[in-house]
Amino acid sequence: MNFASDNVWGVAAPIMAALEATRLGADGAYGGDDLTSQLEARFSAVFERDVSMYLVPTGTAANALAAAAYCPPYGTVFCHGESHIYSDEWGAAEFYTGGAKLESLAGDGGLVDPGRFEEVLDYFQSGAGHRSTPALFSLTQATEFGQVYSLDQISTLTGLAKSSGLATHMDGARFANALASAGCSPAEMTWKAGIDCLSFGATKNGVMGAEALLILDGKAHDDLEARRMRGGLLMSKSRFLSAQLLAYLADNLWLDMAGKANECARVLGAGLAQSSQTRLAWPVAANEIFAILSDEQDRIFKGAGAIYHPWHASGPDRASIVKDGEILVRMVVSPETPMESIHELLALTIK
Amino acid sequence: MNFASDNVWGVAAPIMAALEATRLGADGAYGGDDLTSQLEARFSAVFERDVSMYLVPTGTAANALAAAAYCPPYGTVFCHGESHIYSDEWGAAEFYTGGAKLESLAGDGGLVDPGRFEEVLDYFQSGAGHRSTPALFSLTQATEFGQVYSLDQISTLTGLAKSSGLATHMDGARFANALASAGCSPAEMTWKAGIDCLSFGATKNGVMGAEALLILDGKAHDDLEARRMRGGLLMSKSRFLSAQLLAYLADNLWLDMAGKANECARVLGAGLAQSSQTRLAWPVAANEIFAILSDEQDRIFKGAGAIYHPWHASGPDRASIVKDGEILVRMVVSPETPMESIHELLALTIK
Amino acid sequence: MNFASDNVWGVAAPIMAALEATRLGADGAYGGDDLTSQLEARFSAVFERDVSMYLVPTGTAANALAAAAYCPPYGTVFCHGESHIYSDEWGAAEFYTGGAKLESLAGDGGLVDPGRFEEVLDYFQSGAGHRSTPALFSLTQATEFGQVYSLDQISTLTGLAKSSGLATHMDGARFANALASAGCSPAEMTWKAGIDCLSFGATKNGVMGAEALLILDGKAHDDLEARRMRGGLLMSKSRFLSAQLLAYLADNLWLDMAGKANECARVLGAGLAQSSQTRLAWPVAANEIFAILSDEQDRIFKGAGAIYHPWHASGPDRASIVKDGEILVRMVVSPETPMESIHELLALTIK
Amino acid sequence: MNFASDNVWGVAAPIMAALEATRLGADGAYGGDDLTSQLEARFSAVFERDVSMYLVPTGTAANALAAAAYCPPYGTVFCHGESHIYSDEWGAAEFYTGGAKLESLAGDGGLVDPGRFEEVLDYFQSGAGHRSTPALFSLTQATEFGQVYSLDQISTLTGLAKSSGLATHMDGARFANALASAGCSPAEMTWKAGIDCLSFGATKNGVMGAEALLILDGKAHDDLEARRMRGGLLMSKSRFLSAQLLAYLADNLWLDMAGKANECARVLGAGLAQSSQTRLAWPVAANEIFAILSDEQDRIFKGAGAIYHPWHASGPDRASIVKDGEILVRMVVSPETPMESIHELLALTIK
Repeated sequence: MNFASDNVWGVAAPIMAALEATRLGADGAYGGDDLTSQLEARFSAVFERDVSMYLVPTGTAANALAAAAYCPPYGTVFCHGESHIYSDEWGAAEFYTGGAKLESLAGDGGLVDPGRFEEVLDYFQSGAGHRSTPALFSLTQATEFGQVYSLDQISTLTGLAKSSGLATHMDGARFANALASAGCSPAEMTWKAGIDCLSFGATKNGVMGAEALLILDGKAHDDLEARRMRGGLLMSKSRFLSAQLLAYLADNLWLDMAGKANECARVLGAGLAQSSQTRLAWPVAANEIFAILSDEQDRIFKGAGAIYHPWHASGPDRASIVKDGEILVRMVVSPETPMESIHELLALTIK
Repeated sequence: MNFASDNVWGVAAPIMAALEATRLGADGAYGGDDLTSQLEARFSAVFERDVSMYLVPTGTAANALAAAAYCPPYGTVFCHGESHIYSDEWGAAEFYTGGAKLESLAGDGGLVDPGRFEEVLDYFQSGAGHRSTPALFSLTQATEFGQVYSLDQISTLTGLAKSSGLATHMDGARFANALASAGCSPAEMTWKAGIDCLSFGATKNGVMGAEALLILDGKAHDDLEARRMRGGLLMSKSRFLSAQLLAYLADNLWLDMAGKANECARVLGAGLAQSSQTRLAWPVAANEIFAILSDEQDRIFKGAGAIYHPWHASGPDRASIVKDGEILVRMVVSPETPMESIHELLALTIK
Repeated sequence: MNFASDNVWGVAAPIMAALEATRLGADGAYGGDDLTSQLEARFSAVFERDVSMYLVPTGTAANALAAAAYCPPYGTVFCHGESHIYSDEWGAAEFYTGGAKLESLAGDGGLVDPGRFEEVLDYFQSGAGHRSTPALFSLTQATEFGQVYSLDQISTLTGLAKSSGLATHMDGARFANALASAGCSPAEMTWKAGIDCLSFGATKNGVMGAEALLILDGKAHDDLEARRMRGGLLMSKSRFLSAQLLAYLADNLWLDMAGKANECARVLGAGLAQSSQTRLAWPVAANEIFAILSDEQDRIFKGAGAIYHPWHASGPDRASIVKDGEILVRMVVSPETPMESIHELLALTIK
Repeated sequence: MNFASDNVWGVAAPIMAALEATRLGADGAYGGDDLTSQLEARFSAVFERDVSMYLVPTGTAANALAAAAYCPPYGTVFCHGESHIYSDEWGAAEFYTGGAKLESLAGDGGLVDPGRFEEVLDYFQSGAGHRSTPALFSLTQATEFGQVYSLDQISTLTGLAKSSGLATHMDGARFANALASAGCSPAEMTWKAGIDCLSFGATKNGVMGAEALLILDGKAHDDLEARRMRGGLLMSKSRFLSAQLLAYLADNLWLDMAGKANECARVLGAGLAQSSQTRLAWPVAANEIFAILSDEQDRIFKGAGAIYHPWHASGPDRASIVKDGEILVRMVVSPETPMESIHELLALTIK
C-alpha cells in the first residue's frame, strides 16, 4: 500500500523492452543518434507542429531550462506559490536563470487565480526599472493538488501573460494524466491554448527516467544546447532516453497508463469519500488524492502499513478546512500501483 | 516643491568640506587608507561593539552583500514583499547570492507581520530537502512606508528568525531617521535587538554617496572582501567615502539632519491631514508621508509644480482604503528640503 | 569500425539485467531506496574508507558538483587546459560554482606539469586580494590523451596543491581504465595519493548512464544535496542508477571490462605503429589511441567506413609533431567494441 | 615619494569645484538629472558618434558590465592573462556574466599577441558545442605594463575578433594616458579601430570616483540598465558622478592631466635608465614604469621612504630578464604626483 508518490514505482514492461532492444551496437553520442532524431519527429507529429526537443534526465531540469530560455537573470517568473518550480526544486529555476525572481501566485487547488495574477503583474509593472522584469508565466498541469485546468482556464491565463509580453510554460510532470482526464489533444492543451513550451513528463508515468523540454513556439533557442550541457544534463548515451520515450509514445501506451492511474485514483478517492472519517480536500481529477483524515483513520492506515505523505496545511485556504484531530494527506497512484493495494486500503476505512 | 525622494537633494556642507579636506596628498588605495581605519573604529564606538565595515557606493550593494554573506545560493531570504531588497533592486540579492530565493512576507505599513512570518517559515521547513533552505531574515527600518519598528517588534521578529536558525539583517537606508524617531541608541536598535548586520544608509540623509555594510555579529566573513570587489563595489579612492561618513557621524550631524527631516515630515503630514481632501494612509513616523489625495487636490498640487510619486495601491490592505476619485501618493523629506517648500505646498491644500 | 568514442557503444548485459531485476515494485524515491544505500556501502568497501556518494546522470555533473563543493564563486580551479572540465563541458564548472575562474595548466599528454603548476600558483598568490582565490586542483585520470598518472605523479601534484591549501579532485571518467592500467587499488589511486573527491565514471565503460561524485575526505558537504537537486541532477527513480553501478562493481565486472578495452586499444595502437604511414603521438596507456596518420592512410581508413575524430593539433607541443600531409586523430575503444573491427582497421594499414 | 599607484593620489581642483557647484538643490535621482544628460551628449561629441553611457563607481564595474553585455553565461571572453579583467578583479567578469570563461592570451608587455590569439580562437572553434562559445575580445589600453597599442595593432586584433564573430571591448582605465601618448582622437582609438565598447576610466587620472561604460556600436543593450542596478552600481545621486566627468572633459583637463603624468613618467624612466643598477623592462609609453633594480638600489629607495610595488616576475618572458640579486618593480605616476618626488627619487639612483 505505497501511495507516497508515482516516483516510487518502477518501469512499464514496454519501456524496459525498448532499452534492451537498443542495448547493443554503436550510434552517435550526445543525442546525435538515430533514435533521438526519430523521437523529435514523433513529438512533432504528436503535437501537430514542429517541436524542438531537449531531452533531460529530470523534470526539474526541464523546468529550469525553460525558465532560463525565457527569463533573463533580471527577470521574473510568475507561478503558483505551491508549484514544483517554486517550492520543490531547491531553487533550480533561480539557479539556471542566473538569479531571476520567482514570484508566487495564489489560487485554490494549485490553480493560479487570474485576478490575483493580474494584480501582481500590475504591481510589477508599476515598478518597471526597479523590479525584476516580468518575463515568464508558468503553470502546472495537472497541478500539485491534482487539479486539471480546463482549456478555457489555460487560455485566460496565457492571454493575461501574453498581453503583458510574457512567455508561457507548462510544467507537465503529469501531462499524460491531465490529457487523459481532459480528453483533449496535446496540441489543444498546449500551443493552441497559448503555451510556448512544455516540460513533458514521463518518469512519473511508468518510465525509468526520461523527460523532455519541448519548445512549441517555433522560435530558435540556440542557448538551450549550451545550457543543457553546462547543467550536466546532456546524457552521452542519449539514445537510451529516446528509446524510453519512443516506447512511451507508441501504441498509446502513455495515455493508457495515465488513464489507468487516473481511474485507480478515482476509485480510491470515491472510496475514501464514503468514510465518515474522511473527506476530499479537492475533487480527484487526475492521479492524486488529497484527503482530510481523522487522526484515528490515519492511525489505522499507518498501522496497516500504508505509505503516504502528510501535506502541509497552513495555506490560507487549507488552514480553515483542516480541524483539530484531522490531518491532510496526499496519496498518489501510478500506473504500476496494483489495484489490490487500493482495495486493501479502502477495506480499512471507518464507515 | 520636490518631494519625489530624499535622493533628489544634494549634500550637506560639512560632508563636502570633508571631501575638500582630503583632496590632496597620497594615501592607501582600496581602503588601505587612514580615514577608512578611523571610520571603522568610529563605527565600533557608535555601535558599542567591534564592527566589521564594508564601504560600498550604494544601499542596494550593502543589502545584496548582506544577503550573499548570510544566504547560500540554495537558501531563502525572508523579507517584506514591498521592501527595497524584494521589490526595488532589480534582483540584486538574487544576483549576489547566486540565485537564492527571496520570499515575500506581508504586513501593514511595510512592517512584517510575525504571525505570517511564522506560517511561512513553517511551510518552508515542512519541505526541507526540496525548498530553498531558510537562511536570512531582513527587515527595513524605517520601512518603505515610513513606519518605525519598536524595539519589541524587532526583538519578536529576530527571535522567530533565530529560533529557526536564520541570521538577521536590517536595511537601514533610513536608519538615522528611524533612530531619531525612536530615540534609542544604535546598539539598542540593532544587535541588542537581535540584528546580525546592518545596511547603514547615509546617502538619503545628506551624504553624496556612501553606504556601509556593518557586520555586528562578531563573526568572520572573509568572503565579503571578495564579493565586494567582484561586484565592482570597492572604490579605489575609498578615502573619499570614509571622509563623508566620518563627517556624517561627527558632532551628531547624522541625527540632527534626520531629526530635522523627520520634523519637517511631521509638519507636512499634520498639515495635509487637516485638509478635507486628504488623509494619511499611515501615521508619519520618520521622513516619509503616504497620503490619499482627492484627484482634485492632486491636480492642484501638480499644477503648482509639486513633485511626488503616485504609489501603487493594489496591495490587499491599500486597495480597500483608496476609493475612486482618490490617489495614494508618497512624499519624502530630506534634511536639505527647504521648510518653505513645505509651507508652499500646505498653502495649496483644500480646507 | 566505430572508434569515435567509448560513449557511442551500448550497455553490458549484466548492467541491463540489473535494471530488469529492479523493474517492478516500489521503493523510496530521490535516493531513499534500498539499492542506493547498498551502493554507498559498496563504494565504501571498494575505497576502503567511508565514502559519501552523490549519484548523477553525467560525468559533467559530477565534475561540476565537485567544483562547487570545494571552490567558492570567487575562487579558482586549476586544471589542465585540455581537460574535460576546462574545455569540453561548456562552462559547467563555472556555472555550478557561480562564476569561479578555471585556470588552465600545461603539460604533455594531458598530464599537468608540476613546475608549471607551481609557477601559476605562485602568480595567483602574489595577487591575493585581487585574484580569484586558489581553491581546487583537478586532474584527469586517465587523461584526455589516454595517459595514466603514476601514483608518484599524483602525489607530487596533490602535495603542491595541499601545501597551498587547495582541495583536490580527480576526474575519473575513465577511472576503471586507469586502474586496470596501473594495477593498483582504488584507494591507492585516490585518497592515499592525496585526492579529496572523485568523479567516478562508468558510462564510458559499458554502463547505460550512471556516474557518482565520491567524497573521500571524510568531511561533511551538506551543500551537495542542495546543489544536486537545484542542478536538476537528482533522479527521482534513483534506484535505477544504483542498480547499474551495483552490477558494475560486482564480480570485478568494471575492471574486467576496462581491462578488455585497454587490451584492445593496445593491440590497435601496436598495429598502427607498425605502419610506415602512422606513428603514435603518445604511448597507449589506457583505451585511447592518438595517432598521426598520413593523409593517404586517413583517406583509406575513412573510405572503408572507419569512424574516428580528427584531433586539434595547434597546441605548442603537438603543432611541432604534426607535419604537412599528416593528421592527428583520436581512436577510442570501449569494452563493447568488437575485436573484429580492430583487425578490420589494421588490415587497412599501409605497410 | 609615493609611486604605488595612480589611485593613491587625490582629486584635481576643477573636479572638486564641480562637485561643490552642484551641491545644493534638487534634481532627478538615479541618473534622471540634467548633468547626466549633458554628460551623455558630451561623450557623443567627444567620440564623434552617438554613445550610450552607463555611469558606474569603479572601473571593475565597467569591465564587468561590458562582459555581461556581450558575453552569455556559456560564452568566452578572450583577454591578456595579465589584464585587469583577468587577474585583478577577483572574478568580476565571471560573476556579472553568470559564469562565462575568461581565456587568457599571452603577449609581451601586456600586448596581446595576434598569432597566439588566432591559435586559441582556432582551438575554441574546433570544440564548438563543447567549449564556452567565443563571444568577446577585451584589450587594455594602456596595458597593465604601461604599453600603448598602435592603431594598427588594435585594428589587427579587432579584425581577428570580428572575423570570428566576437564583439570587442577596450579597458580604458588609463585611456587618457594612452590617448595623450598616441596623439590620436578618441574615435580613432576606439570605434574607428573596431572597438564596440569602452571602459572609460577617469579615477586614476585625478577624478574622485567616476567611470563610464560607453557603448560605441550603436546597438541597444537594454539589459545594461538592469545589470547595473542589480549590481548595486547605480548611484542614487548620480549627478555627482556626472559633475566630475563633465569637469574632467572640459577645457581639455583630462588630456592635460594625462599628458603631465606621462611626461613625469618619461622623466622618471629616463632617469632610472641612466643608473648602472637599473634597466627598464619595457619602454615608458604612458604613466607607468617597470624597472629592474638591483637589490641594493631597491634597498636605497625603500630606505629613503619611496613607495612602489614589487611586480611578479615568473611569467615566461620576465623570468628570463630578472636575474638573481634583482627585482622587478612598478612605479606609477599620477597627475597629482609632485615632480619633486621624482627628482628626489632620481637623486638616490646609483650612477
